[in-house]
Amino acid sequence: MDEFALIGEVVAQLGDRARGGWVAHGPGDDAAVIAQTPDCQAVASIDTLVAGVHFPVDMPAEAIGYRALMVSLSDLAAMAATPRYALVALTLPVADPLWVRGLAQGMAAAARRTDVYICGGNFAQGPLSLTVSVHGEVENHGAVMRSGAEIGDRICVSGPLGGAAACVRLKAFDVGQRPSPMQQCYHYPRARFDLLDVIRRSAHAAIDISDGLSKDLEHLCRASGVGADLHSANIPLVRGATLEDALYGGDDYEILCTAAAAPAELIEIGVVTAGPDVTLDGLPISARGYNHFEP
Amino acid sequence: MDEFALIGEVVAQLGDRARGGWVAHGPGDDAAVIAQTPDCQAVASIDTLVAGVHFPVDMPAEAIGYRALMVSLSDLAAMAATPRYALVALTLPVADPLWVRGLAQGMAAAARRTDVYICGGNFAQGPLSLTVSVHGEVENHGAVMRSGAEIGDRICVSGPLGGAAACVRLKAFDVGQRPSPMQQCYHYPRARFDLLDVIRRSAHAAIDISDGLSKDLEHLCRASGVGADLHSANIPLVRGATLEDALYGGDDYEILCTAAAAPAELIEIGVVTAGPDVTLDGLPISARGYNHFEP
Repeated sequence: MDEFALIGEVVAQLGDRARGGWVAHGPGDDAAVIAQTPDCQAVASIDTLVAGVHFPVDMPAEAIGYRALMVSLSDLAAMAATPRYALVALTLPVADPLWVRGLAQGMAAAARRTDVYICGGNFAQGPLSLTVSVHGEVENHGAVMRSGAEIGDRICVSGPLGGAAACVRLKAFDVGQRPSPMQQCYHYPRARFDLLDVIRRSAHAAIDISDGLSKDLEHLCRASGVGADLHSANIPLVRGATLEDALYGGDDYEILCTAAAAPAELIEIGVVTAGPDVTLDGLPISARGYNHFEP
Repeated sequence: MDEFALIGEVVAQLGDRARGGWVAHGPGDDAAVIAQTPDCQAVASIDTLVAGVHFPVDMPAEAIGYRALMVSLSDLAAMAATPRYALVALTLPVADPLWVRGLAQGMAAAARRTDVYICGGNFAQGPLSLTVSVHGEVENHGAVMRSGAEIGDRICVSGPLGGAAACVRLKAFDVGQRPSPMQQCYHYPRARFDLLDVIRRSAHAAIDISDGLSKDLEHLCRASGVGADLHSANIPLVRGATLEDALYGGDDYEILCTAAAAPAELIEIGVVTAGPDVTLDGLPISARGYNHFEP
Protein backbone atom coordinates (compact mmCIF):
# COMPACT_ATOMS: atom_id res chain seq x y z
CA MET A 1 0.00 0.00 0.00
CA ASP A 2 1.55 3.33 -1.02
CA GLU A 3 1.42 6.76 0.63
CA PHE A 4 -1.68 7.94 -1.24
CA ALA A 5 -3.62 4.72 -0.57
CA LEU A 6 -2.68 5.01 3.12
CA ILE A 7 -4.01 8.57 3.23
CA GLY A 8 -7.25 7.34 1.68
CA GLU A 9 -7.49 4.61 4.32
CA VAL A 10 -6.98 7.09 7.16
CA VAL A 11 -9.51 9.57 5.79
CA ALA A 12 -12.04 6.74 5.38
CA GLN A 13 -11.54 5.65 9.00
CA LEU A 14 -11.78 9.22 10.30
CA GLY A 15 -15.15 9.48 8.55
CA ASP A 16 -17.14 12.42 9.93
CA ARG A 17 -14.04 13.58 11.86
CA ALA A 18 -12.03 14.53 8.72
CA ARG A 19 -14.34 17.31 7.55
CA GLY A 20 -17.52 19.12 8.55
CA GLY A 21 -18.46 21.79 11.07
CA TRP A 22 -15.95 24.64 10.99
CA VAL A 23 -13.67 22.79 8.55
CA ALA A 24 -14.32 24.32 5.12
CA HIS A 25 -11.76 22.10 3.31
CA GLY A 26 -10.42 18.95 4.94
CA PRO A 27 -7.74 16.52 3.74
CA GLY A 28 -6.85 16.36 0.03
CA ASP A 29 -5.29 19.72 -0.82
CA ASP A 30 -2.02 21.41 0.09
CA ALA A 31 -3.57 22.61 3.35
CA ALA A 32 -6.85 22.55 5.23
CA VAL A 33 -9.11 25.62 5.47
CA ILE A 34 -10.92 26.28 8.75
CA ALA A 35 -13.41 28.98 9.78
CA GLN A 36 -12.33 31.29 12.60
CA THR A 37 -14.81 32.43 15.25
CA PRO A 38 -15.19 36.23 15.50
CA ASP A 39 -13.70 37.87 18.61
CA CYS A 40 -11.67 34.78 19.41
CA GLN A 41 -7.95 34.10 19.51
CA ALA A 42 -6.31 30.91 18.22
CA VAL A 43 -4.65 28.62 20.77
CA ALA A 44 -2.10 26.17 19.38
CA SER A 45 0.24 23.48 20.63
CA ILE A 46 2.29 20.59 19.23
CA ASP A 47 3.39 17.28 20.78
CA THR A 48 5.40 14.29 19.62
CA LEU A 49 5.05 10.72 20.86
CA VAL A 50 7.95 8.43 20.01
CA ALA A 51 7.54 4.63 20.08
CA GLY A 52 9.52 3.12 22.93
CA VAL A 53 9.77 6.47 24.72
CA HIS A 54 6.20 7.76 25.07
CA PHE A 55 4.37 4.50 24.47
CA PRO A 56 5.33 0.82 24.24
CA VAL A 57 5.92 -0.30 20.64
CA ASP A 58 3.39 -3.11 21.05
CA MET A 59 0.60 -0.97 22.50
CA PRO A 60 -2.57 -1.46 20.42
CA ALA A 61 -2.62 1.04 17.54
CA GLU A 62 -6.11 2.18 18.49
CA ALA A 63 -4.96 3.12 22.03
CA ILE A 64 -1.87 4.90 20.62
CA GLY A 65 -4.11 7.00 18.38
CA TYR A 66 -6.62 7.76 21.11
CA ARG A 67 -3.92 8.66 23.60
CA ALA A 68 -1.84 10.77 21.19
CA LEU A 69 -4.76 13.01 20.35
CA MET A 70 -6.04 13.30 23.94
CA VAL A 71 -2.69 14.15 25.54
CA SER A 72 -2.07 16.79 22.90
CA LEU A 73 -5.53 18.28 23.31
CA SER A 74 -5.02 18.42 27.07
CA ASP A 75 -2.76 21.46 26.56
CA LEU A 76 -5.73 23.33 25.08
CA ALA A 77 -7.95 22.40 28.04
CA ALA A 78 -5.28 23.84 30.36
CA MET A 79 -5.54 27.15 28.48
CA ALA A 80 -9.36 27.10 28.78
CA ALA A 81 -9.61 26.85 24.97
CA THR A 82 -12.43 25.21 23.04
CA PRO A 83 -10.79 22.55 20.84
CA ARG A 84 -11.37 22.92 17.09
CA TYR A 85 -9.03 20.82 14.98
CA ALA A 86 -5.83 18.80 14.85
CA LEU A 87 -3.18 17.92 12.27
CA VAL A 88 -1.41 14.57 12.54
CA ALA A 89 2.03 13.70 11.17
CA LEU A 90 2.70 9.98 11.24
CA THR A 91 6.15 8.54 10.68
CA LEU A 92 6.24 4.77 10.33
CA PRO A 93 8.76 2.22 9.14
CA VAL A 94 6.45 0.13 6.98
CA ALA A 95 3.02 0.77 5.52
CA ASP A 96 0.85 -1.57 7.59
CA PRO A 97 -2.73 -0.74 6.59
CA LEU A 98 -4.23 -2.70 9.50
CA TRP A 99 -2.13 -0.84 12.04
CA VAL A 100 -2.83 2.53 10.43
CA ARG A 101 -6.55 1.74 10.38
CA GLY A 102 -6.48 1.02 14.12
CA LEU A 103 -4.60 4.22 14.81
CA ALA A 104 -7.10 6.28 12.80
CA GLN A 105 -10.02 4.61 14.57
CA GLY A 106 -8.54 5.49 17.97
CA MET A 107 -7.97 9.07 16.88
CA ALA A 108 -11.49 9.33 15.51
CA ALA A 109 -12.88 8.10 18.85
CA ALA A 110 -10.91 10.74 20.76
CA ALA A 111 -11.92 13.39 18.21
CA ARG A 112 -15.59 12.51 18.63
CA ARG A 113 -15.37 12.79 22.42
CA THR A 114 -13.83 16.26 22.14
CA ASP A 115 -15.72 17.54 19.05
CA VAL A 116 -12.49 17.99 17.13
CA TYR A 117 -11.79 17.52 13.41
CA ILE A 118 -8.58 15.93 12.15
CA CYS A 119 -8.47 17.90 8.94
CA GLY A 120 -4.89 17.43 7.80
CA GLY A 121 -1.85 15.24 8.14
CA ASN A 122 1.31 13.83 6.69
CA PHE A 123 2.91 10.42 6.18
CA ALA A 124 6.64 9.87 6.23
CA GLN A 125 8.78 6.76 6.28
CA GLY A 126 11.04 6.40 9.31
CA PRO A 127 11.12 5.20 12.93
CA LEU A 128 7.62 5.07 14.44
CA SER A 129 6.43 8.36 15.92
CA LEU A 130 3.41 10.64 15.85
CA THR A 131 3.29 14.40 16.03
CA VAL A 132 -0.04 16.07 16.68
CA SER A 133 -0.64 19.80 16.43
CA VAL A 134 -3.83 20.89 18.17
CA HIS A 135 -5.82 24.05 17.67
CA GLY A 136 -8.53 25.70 19.70
CA GLU A 137 -10.05 29.09 20.34
CA VAL A 138 -10.66 31.33 23.34
CA GLU A 139 -12.58 34.57 23.55
CA ASN A 140 -10.12 37.46 23.17
CA HIS A 141 -7.91 37.67 26.29
CA GLY A 142 -9.74 34.65 27.75
CA ALA A 143 -6.79 32.25 27.81
CA VAL A 144 -5.81 31.02 31.27
CA MET A 145 -2.02 31.15 31.57
CA ARG A 146 0.44 29.57 33.99
CA SER A 147 1.42 33.02 35.17
CA GLY A 148 -1.71 34.24 36.97
CA ALA A 149 -1.44 32.54 40.39
CA GLU A 150 -1.82 34.83 43.41
CA ILE A 151 -0.56 34.34 46.94
CA GLY A 152 -3.31 32.75 49.02
CA ASP A 153 -4.95 31.04 46.02
CA ARG A 154 -6.18 27.50 46.60
CA ILE A 155 -4.36 24.89 44.51
CA CYS A 156 -6.81 22.49 42.85
CA VAL A 157 -6.70 19.39 40.66
CA SER A 158 -9.42 18.04 38.43
CA GLY A 159 -9.16 14.37 39.43
CA PRO A 160 -7.12 11.58 41.01
CA LEU A 161 -3.47 11.34 40.04
CA GLY A 162 -0.69 8.77 39.61
CA GLY A 163 -2.67 6.18 37.64
CA ALA A 164 -0.64 6.32 34.43
CA ALA A 165 2.63 6.34 36.39
CA ALA A 166 1.52 3.31 38.42
CA CYS A 167 0.61 1.53 35.18
CA VAL A 168 4.09 2.22 33.80
CA ARG A 169 5.79 1.35 37.10
CA LEU A 170 3.98 -2.01 37.23
CA LYS A 171 4.36 -2.53 33.44
CA ALA A 172 0.62 -3.24 33.40
CA PHE A 173 0.28 -2.54 29.68
CA ASP A 174 -1.68 -5.68 28.82
CA VAL A 175 -5.22 -4.37 29.08
CA GLY A 176 -7.26 -7.51 28.33
CA GLN A 177 -11.03 -7.23 28.37
CA ARG A 178 -11.46 -4.88 31.33
CA PRO A 179 -8.82 -2.22 31.91
CA SER A 180 -8.12 -1.44 35.57
CA PRO A 181 -8.43 2.21 36.65
CA MET A 182 -4.67 2.74 36.29
CA GLN A 183 -4.71 1.11 32.84
CA GLN A 184 -7.61 3.32 31.86
CA CYS A 185 -5.53 6.37 32.91
CA TYR A 186 -2.58 5.31 30.78
CA HIS A 187 -4.33 4.07 27.66
CA TYR A 188 -7.36 6.32 27.55
CA PRO A 189 -6.57 9.64 29.25
CA ARG A 190 -9.16 12.35 28.88
CA ALA A 191 -8.57 16.01 28.13
CA ARG A 192 -10.76 17.85 30.66
CA PHE A 193 -12.84 20.01 28.33
CA ASP A 194 -15.83 19.11 30.53
CA LEU A 195 -14.35 21.63 32.99
CA LEU A 196 -13.88 24.55 30.57
CA ASP A 197 -16.61 26.61 32.22
CA VAL A 198 -15.20 26.00 35.71
CA ILE A 199 -11.67 26.91 34.63
CA ARG A 200 -12.80 30.03 32.80
CA ARG A 201 -14.93 31.17 35.74
CA SER A 202 -12.49 30.43 38.56
CA ALA A 203 -8.89 29.77 37.59
CA HIS A 204 -6.21 32.44 37.98
CA ALA A 205 -3.60 30.07 36.51
CA ALA A 206 -3.69 26.58 35.03
CA ILE A 207 -1.47 23.84 33.60
CA ASP A 208 -2.12 20.23 32.69
CA ILE A 209 -0.23 17.56 34.58
CA SER A 210 2.00 15.83 32.06
CA ASP A 211 5.40 15.88 33.80
CA GLY A 212 4.20 15.06 37.33
CA LEU A 213 2.40 17.13 39.96
CA SER A 214 5.57 18.49 41.60
CA LYS A 215 7.20 19.45 38.29
CA ASP A 216 4.10 21.02 36.76
CA LEU A 217 3.33 22.89 39.97
CA GLU A 218 6.89 24.18 39.87
CA HIS A 219 6.35 25.36 36.26
CA LEU A 220 3.19 27.18 37.30
CA CYS A 221 4.83 28.74 40.38
CA ARG A 222 7.88 29.95 38.42
CA ALA A 223 5.69 31.49 35.74
CA SER A 224 3.64 33.25 38.44
CA GLY A 225 6.56 34.21 40.70
CA VAL A 226 5.05 32.43 43.71
CA GLY A 227 5.54 29.28 45.78
CA ALA A 228 3.16 26.57 46.92
CA ASP A 229 2.46 24.22 49.78
CA LEU A 230 0.75 20.92 49.01
CA HIS A 231 -1.23 18.97 51.62
CA SER A 232 -0.31 15.33 51.08
CA ALA A 233 -3.46 13.99 52.74
CA ASN A 234 -5.62 15.85 50.21
CA ILE A 235 -3.88 14.70 47.01
CA PRO A 236 -6.34 12.30 45.35
CA LEU A 237 -4.83 9.04 44.05
CA VAL A 238 -6.02 6.59 41.43
CA ARG A 239 -6.52 3.08 42.86
CA GLY A 240 -3.10 1.37 42.90
CA ALA A 241 -1.11 4.63 42.67
CA THR A 242 1.21 5.95 45.37
CA LEU A 243 1.89 9.54 46.41
CA GLU A 244 5.27 9.18 44.64
CA ASP A 245 3.45 8.23 41.42
CA ALA A 246 1.33 11.38 41.73
CA LEU A 247 4.19 13.72 42.62
CA TYR A 248 6.81 12.47 40.19
CA GLY A 249 5.09 10.26 37.63
CA GLY A 250 3.23 12.41 35.14
CA ASP A 251 0.98 11.51 32.20
CA ASP A 252 -2.11 12.35 34.29
CA TYR A 253 -3.58 15.04 32.01
CA GLU A 254 -5.68 16.34 34.85
CA ILE A 255 -5.81 20.12 35.22
CA LEU A 256 -3.82 21.77 37.99
CA CYS A 257 -5.04 25.29 38.69
CA THR A 258 -5.22 27.99 41.30
CA ALA A 259 -8.33 29.95 42.31
CA ALA A 260 -9.35 32.37 45.03
CA ALA A 261 -11.60 29.60 46.37
CA ALA A 262 -11.73 25.97 45.24
CA PRO A 263 -14.74 25.37 42.95
CA ALA A 264 -16.96 22.44 43.95
CA GLU A 265 -15.97 20.52 40.79
CA LEU A 266 -12.27 20.48 41.73
CA ILE A 267 -10.24 18.99 44.59
CA GLU A 268 -8.29 21.38 46.81
CA ILE A 269 -4.77 20.10 47.50
CA GLY A 270 -2.81 23.10 48.76
CA VAL A 271 -2.25 26.81 48.85
CA VAL A 272 -0.17 29.35 46.91
CA THR A 273 2.55 30.92 49.07
CA ALA A 274 4.98 33.80 48.69
CA GLY A 275 7.50 31.09 47.83
CA PRO A 276 9.73 30.64 46.05
CA ASP A 277 9.75 26.94 47.05
CA VAL A 278 7.20 24.22 46.43
CA THR A 279 6.69 22.33 49.69
CA LEU A 280 4.74 19.27 50.80
CA ASP A 281 3.20 19.62 54.26
CA GLY A 282 5.61 22.48 54.80
CA LEU A 283 8.74 20.48 53.90
CA PRO A 284 10.77 20.93 50.69
CA ILE A 285 10.13 18.44 47.90
CA SER A 286 12.42 18.00 44.97
CA ALA A 287 10.69 18.92 41.76
CA ARG A 288 11.44 15.70 39.94
CA GLY A 289 9.38 14.70 36.95
CA TYR A 290 9.75 13.83 33.32
CA ASN A 291 12.54 15.70 31.59
CA HIS A 292 13.87 14.59 28.23
CA PHE A 293 17.67 14.52 28.01
CA GLU A 294 18.08 14.77 31.80
CA PRO A 295 21.66 13.72 32.59
CA MET B 1 21.76 20.23 28.69
CA ASP B 2 18.22 19.19 29.63
CA GLU B 3 14.90 19.69 27.84
CA PHE B 4 14.07 22.97 29.53
CA ALA B 5 17.53 24.45 28.93
CA LEU B 6 17.28 23.40 25.26
CA ILE B 7 13.92 25.17 24.95
CA GLY B 8 15.51 28.30 26.44
CA GLU B 9 18.35 28.06 23.91
CA VAL B 10 15.93 27.76 20.97
CA VAL B 11 13.77 30.64 22.14
CA ALA B 12 16.88 32.80 22.58
CA GLN B 13 18.04 32.00 19.03
CA LEU B 14 14.58 32.65 17.57
CA GLY B 15 14.70 36.09 19.15
CA ASP B 16 12.10 38.38 17.59
CA ARG B 17 10.61 35.38 15.72
CA ALA B 18 9.29 33.65 18.89
CA ARG B 19 6.79 36.36 19.85
CA GLY B 20 5.48 39.68 18.63
CA GLY B 21 3.05 40.86 15.98
CA TRP B 22 -0.11 38.75 16.03
CA VAL B 23 1.33 36.34 18.62
CA ALA B 24 -0.24 37.34 21.95
CA HIS B 25 1.55 34.61 23.95
CA GLY B 26 4.57 32.78 22.52
CA PRO B 27 6.58 29.88 23.94
CA GLY B 28 6.48 29.13 27.67
CA ASP B 29 2.91 28.08 28.43
CA ASP B 30 0.83 25.00 27.59
CA ALA B 31 -0.02 26.56 24.22
CA ALA B 32 0.55 29.71 22.21
CA VAL B 33 -2.18 32.33 21.75
CA ILE B 34 -2.47 34.07 18.38
CA ALA B 35 -4.77 36.85 17.13
CA GLN B 36 -7.10 35.95 14.25
CA THR B 37 -7.80 38.44 11.47
CA PRO B 38 -11.50 39.30 11.03
CA ASP B 39 -13.20 37.89 7.91
CA CYS B 40 -10.36 35.44 7.33
CA GLN B 41 -10.18 31.67 7.41
CA ALA B 42 -7.29 29.68 8.90
CA VAL B 43 -5.16 27.62 6.52
CA ALA B 44 -3.11 24.85 8.12
CA SER B 45 -0.72 22.10 7.07
CA ILE B 46 1.82 19.77 8.69
CA ASP B 47 5.01 18.18 7.33
CA THR B 48 7.68 15.86 8.68
CA LEU B 49 11.31 15.69 7.59
CA VAL B 50 13.16 12.54 8.66
CA ALA B 51 16.97 12.46 8.74
CA GLY B 52 18.33 10.17 6.04
CA VAL B 53 15.03 10.29 4.13
CA HIS B 54 14.26 13.97 3.58
CA PHE B 55 17.72 15.39 4.24
CA PRO B 56 21.22 13.98 4.69
CA VAL B 57 22.12 13.40 8.35
CA ASP B 58 25.25 15.53 7.99
CA MET B 59 23.54 18.51 6.32
CA PRO B 60 24.35 21.69 8.28
CA ALA B 61 21.77 22.19 11.05
CA GLU B 62 21.14 25.75 9.91
CA ALA B 63 20.20 24.57 6.39
CA ILE B 64 17.97 21.82 7.83
CA GLY B 65 16.10 24.39 9.89
CA TYR B 66 15.79 26.86 7.03
CA ARG B 67 14.64 24.19 4.61
CA ALA B 68 12.18 22.51 7.00
CA LEU B 69 10.31 25.74 7.63
CA MET B 70 10.34 26.88 3.98
CA VAL B 71 9.12 23.59 2.48
CA SER B 72 6.30 23.42 5.03
CA LEU B 73 5.30 27.05 4.42
CA SER B 74 5.25 26.38 0.67
CA ASP B 75 1.92 24.56 1.13
CA LEU B 76 0.42 27.82 2.41
CA ALA B 77 1.73 29.75 -0.60
CA ALA B 78 0.05 27.18 -2.86
CA MET B 79 -3.28 27.96 -1.14
CA ALA B 80 -2.69 31.72 -1.59
CA ALA B 81 -2.59 32.10 2.21
CA THR B 82 -0.65 34.78 4.09
CA PRO B 83 1.67 32.92 6.48
CA ARG B 84 1.25 33.70 10.19
CA TYR B 85 2.93 31.20 12.48
CA ALA B 86 4.50 27.78 12.82
CA LEU B 87 4.93 25.16 15.53
CA VAL B 88 8.01 22.96 15.48
CA ALA B 89 8.36 19.49 17.02
CA LEU B 90 11.97 18.35 17.15
CA THR B 91 12.94 14.76 17.90
CA LEU B 92 16.64 14.22 18.43
CA PRO B 93 18.77 11.42 19.83
CA VAL B 94 21.06 13.54 21.99
CA ALA B 95 20.82 17.08 23.28
CA ASP B 96 23.51 18.84 21.26
CA PRO B 97 23.12 22.55 22.06
CA LEU B 98 25.36 23.65 19.19
CA TRP B 99 23.33 21.70 16.64
CA VAL B 100 20.05 22.90 18.08
CA ARG B 101 21.31 26.49 18.03
CA GLY B 102 22.17 26.17 14.32
CA LEU B 103 18.77 24.69 13.55
CA ALA B 104 16.99 27.51 15.38
CA GLN B 105 19.09 30.12 13.57
CA GLY B 106 18.15 28.62 10.20
CA MET B 107 14.49 28.56 11.14
CA ALA B 108 14.65 32.14 12.36
CA ALA B 109 16.18 33.22 9.03
CA ALA B 110 13.38 31.51 7.08
CA ALA B 111 10.80 32.97 9.47
CA ARG B 112 12.15 36.48 8.95
CA ARG B 113 11.99 36.13 5.17
CA THR B 114 8.35 35.05 5.35
CA ASP B 115 7.22 37.23 8.29
CA VAL B 116 6.27 34.18 10.33
CA TYR B 117 6.49 33.59 14.09
CA ILE B 118 7.60 30.25 15.52
CA CYS B 119 5.51 30.54 18.66
CA GLY B 120 5.46 26.98 19.97
CA GLY B 121 7.24 23.69 19.83
CA ASN B 122 8.15 20.43 21.46
CA PHE B 123 11.30 18.43 22.18
CA ALA B 124 11.36 14.65 22.31
CA GLN B 125 14.16 12.13 22.47
CA GLY B 126 14.36 9.71 19.56
CA PRO B 127 15.67 9.31 16.01
CA LEU B 128 16.32 12.69 14.36
CA SER B 129 13.27 14.23 12.69
CA LEU B 130 11.40 17.53 12.55
CA THR B 131 7.71 18.12 12.19
CA VAL B 132 6.52 21.61 11.35
CA SER B 133 2.90 22.70 11.40
CA VAL B 134 2.31 25.92 9.49
CA HIS B 135 -0.58 28.33 9.77
CA GLY B 136 -1.78 31.13 7.58
CA GLU B 137 -4.92 33.04 6.73
CA VAL B 138 -6.95 33.81 3.60
CA GLU B 139 -9.89 36.12 3.16
CA ASN B 140 -13.08 34.08 3.52
CA HIS B 141 -13.46 31.77 0.49
CA GLY B 142 -10.18 33.13 -0.92
CA ALA B 143 -8.18 29.89 -0.76
CA VAL B 144 -6.97 28.61 -4.13
CA MET B 145 -7.58 24.85 -4.27
CA ARG B 146 -6.24 22.12 -6.52
CA SER B 147 -9.72 21.53 -7.82
CA GLY B 148 -10.47 24.69 -9.78
CA ALA B 149 -8.66 24.05 -13.09
CA GLU B 150 -10.77 24.59 -16.24
CA ILE B 151 -10.29 23.12 -19.69
CA GLY B 152 -8.28 25.55 -21.81
CA ASP B 153 -6.49 27.08 -18.78
CA ARG B 154 -2.82 27.81 -19.25
CA ILE B 155 -0.53 25.76 -16.99
CA CYS B 156 2.08 27.95 -15.32
CA VAL B 157 5.05 27.55 -12.99
CA SER B 158 6.66 30.19 -10.81
CA GLY B 159 10.29 29.39 -11.62
CA PRO B 160 12.86 26.94 -13.00
CA LEU B 161 12.58 23.31 -11.88
CA GLY B 162 14.74 20.28 -11.24
CA GLY B 163 17.50 21.97 -9.22
CA ALA B 164 16.95 20.13 -5.95
CA ALA B 165 16.57 16.81 -7.78
CA ALA B 166 19.80 17.42 -9.71
CA CYS B 167 21.57 18.24 -6.43
CA VAL B 168 20.36 14.94 -4.96
CA ARG B 169 21.13 13.00 -8.15
CA LEU B 170 24.69 14.34 -8.19
CA LYS B 171 25.01 14.06 -4.38
CA ALA B 172 26.21 17.67 -4.43
CA PHE B 173 25.43 18.28 -0.77
CA ASP B 174 28.75 19.87 0.16
CA VAL B 175 27.93 23.53 -0.29
CA GLY B 176 31.27 25.18 0.50
CA GLN B 177 31.47 28.96 0.33
CA ARG B 178 29.34 29.57 -2.75
CA PRO B 179 26.39 27.26 -3.35
CA SER B 180 25.68 26.49 -7.01
CA PRO B 181 22.16 27.21 -8.29
CA MET B 182 21.12 23.58 -7.79
CA GLN B 183 22.59 23.56 -4.28
CA GLN B 184 20.74 26.77 -3.53
CA CYS B 185 17.50 25.05 -4.62
CA TYR B 186 18.06 22.08 -2.34
CA HIS B 187 19.40 23.82 0.76
CA TYR B 188 17.56 27.12 0.64
CA PRO B 189 14.24 26.68 -1.17
CA ARG B 190 11.88 29.62 -1.01
CA ALA B 191 8.15 29.54 -0.43
CA ARG B 192 6.71 31.82 -3.11
CA PHE B 193 4.76 34.27 -0.96
CA ASP B 194 6.13 37.02 -3.22
CA LEU B 195 3.53 35.77 -5.74
CA LEU B 196 0.48 35.80 -3.44
CA ASP B 197 -1.15 38.68 -5.29
CA VAL B 198 -0.57 37.05 -8.68
CA ILE B 199 -1.98 33.72 -7.51
CA ARG B 200 -5.00 35.32 -5.86
CA ARG B 201 -5.73 37.44 -8.91
CA SER B 202 -5.20 34.82 -11.60
CA ALA B 203 -5.05 31.21 -10.47
CA HIS B 204 -8.01 28.87 -10.89
CA ALA B 205 -6.09 26.05 -9.21
CA ALA B 206 -2.67 25.76 -7.58
CA ILE B 207 -0.32 23.27 -5.94
CA ASP B 208 3.31 23.49 -4.88
CA ILE B 209 5.78 21.17 -6.61
CA SER B 210 7.10 18.86 -3.91
CA ASP B 211 6.67 15.43 -5.51
CA GLY B 212 7.79 16.36 -9.04
CA LEU B 213 6.07 18.28 -11.83
CA SER B 214 4.37 15.24 -13.39
CA LYS B 215 3.07 13.90 -10.07
CA ASP B 216 1.87 17.23 -8.74
CA LEU B 217 0.25 18.11 -12.06
CA GLU B 218 -1.51 14.74 -11.87
CA HIS B 219 -2.76 15.60 -8.35
CA LEU B 220 -4.09 18.92 -9.61
CA CYS B 221 -5.73 17.34 -12.68
CA ARG B 222 -7.40 14.57 -10.67
CA ALA B 223 -8.75 17.07 -8.15
CA SER B 224 -10.10 19.21 -11.00
CA GLY B 225 -11.35 16.33 -13.18
CA VAL B 226 -9.28 17.45 -16.16
CA GLY B 227 -6.14 16.45 -18.07
CA ALA B 228 -3.10 18.42 -19.18
CA ASP B 229 -0.56 18.67 -21.95
CA LEU B 230 2.90 19.97 -21.11
CA HIS B 231 5.19 21.55 -23.68
CA SER B 232 8.66 20.21 -22.94
CA ALA B 233 10.46 23.07 -24.66
CA ASN B 234 8.81 25.57 -22.31
CA ILE B 235 9.59 23.85 -18.99
CA PRO B 236 12.22 26.05 -17.33
CA LEU B 237 15.19 24.19 -15.84
CA VAL B 238 17.68 25.17 -13.17
CA ARG B 239 21.26 25.16 -14.47
CA GLY B 240 22.49 21.54 -14.27
CA ALA B 241 19.02 20.01 -14.11
CA THR B 242 17.50 17.75 -16.77
CA LEU B 243 13.90 17.49 -17.94
CA GLU B 244 13.76 14.18 -16.02
CA ASP B 245 14.80 16.01 -12.85
CA ALA B 246 11.98 18.50 -13.38
CA LEU B 247 9.32 15.94 -14.26
CA TYR B 248 10.11 13.30 -11.67
CA GLY B 249 12.42 14.85 -9.09
CA GLY B 250 10.43 17.04 -6.77
CA ASP B 251 11.50 19.32 -3.90
CA ASP B 252 11.17 22.38 -6.13
CA TYR B 253 8.61 24.28 -4.05
CA GLU B 254 7.72 26.41 -7.02
CA ILE B 255 4.00 27.02 -7.57
CA LEU B 256 2.21 25.12 -10.31
CA CYS B 257 -1.08 26.76 -11.22
CA THR B 258 -3.63 27.17 -13.97
CA ALA B 259 -5.12 30.45 -15.18
CA ALA B 260 -7.27 31.66 -18.05
CA ALA B 261 -4.17 33.48 -19.34
CA ALA B 262 -0.61 33.19 -18.07
CA PRO B 263 0.28 36.19 -15.85
CA ALA B 264 3.53 37.96 -16.82
CA GLU B 265 5.16 36.87 -13.53
CA LEU B 266 4.75 33.15 -14.34
CA ILE B 267 6.07 30.82 -17.03
CA GLU B 268 3.54 29.10 -19.28
CA ILE B 269 4.39 25.41 -19.76
CA GLY B 270 1.21 23.79 -21.06
CA VAL B 271 -2.54 23.70 -21.32
CA VAL B 272 -5.42 22.08 -19.41
CA THR B 273 -7.24 19.48 -21.51
CA ALA B 274 -10.42 17.45 -21.18
CA GLY B 275 -8.13 14.64 -20.09
CA PRO B 276 -8.04 12.46 -18.22
CA ASP B 277 -4.34 11.94 -19.05
CA VAL B 278 -1.34 14.13 -18.41
CA THR B 279 0.74 14.24 -21.59
CA LEU B 280 4.07 15.74 -22.63
CA ASP B 281 4.08 17.16 -26.17
CA GLY B 282 0.94 15.10 -26.74
CA LEU B 283 2.47 11.77 -25.62
CA PRO B 284 1.61 9.97 -22.37
CA ILE B 285 4.08 10.42 -19.50
CA SER B 286 4.08 8.21 -16.47
CA ALA B 287 3.29 10.20 -13.38
CA ARG B 288 6.30 9.10 -11.40
CA GLY B 289 7.48 11.13 -8.44
CA TYR B 290 8.12 10.81 -4.76
CA ASN B 291 5.81 8.39 -3.02
CA HIS B 292 6.59 7.08 0.45
CA PHE B 293 6.15 3.32 0.83
CA GLU B 294 5.97 2.77 -2.92
CA PRO B 295 6.53 -0.97 -3.52
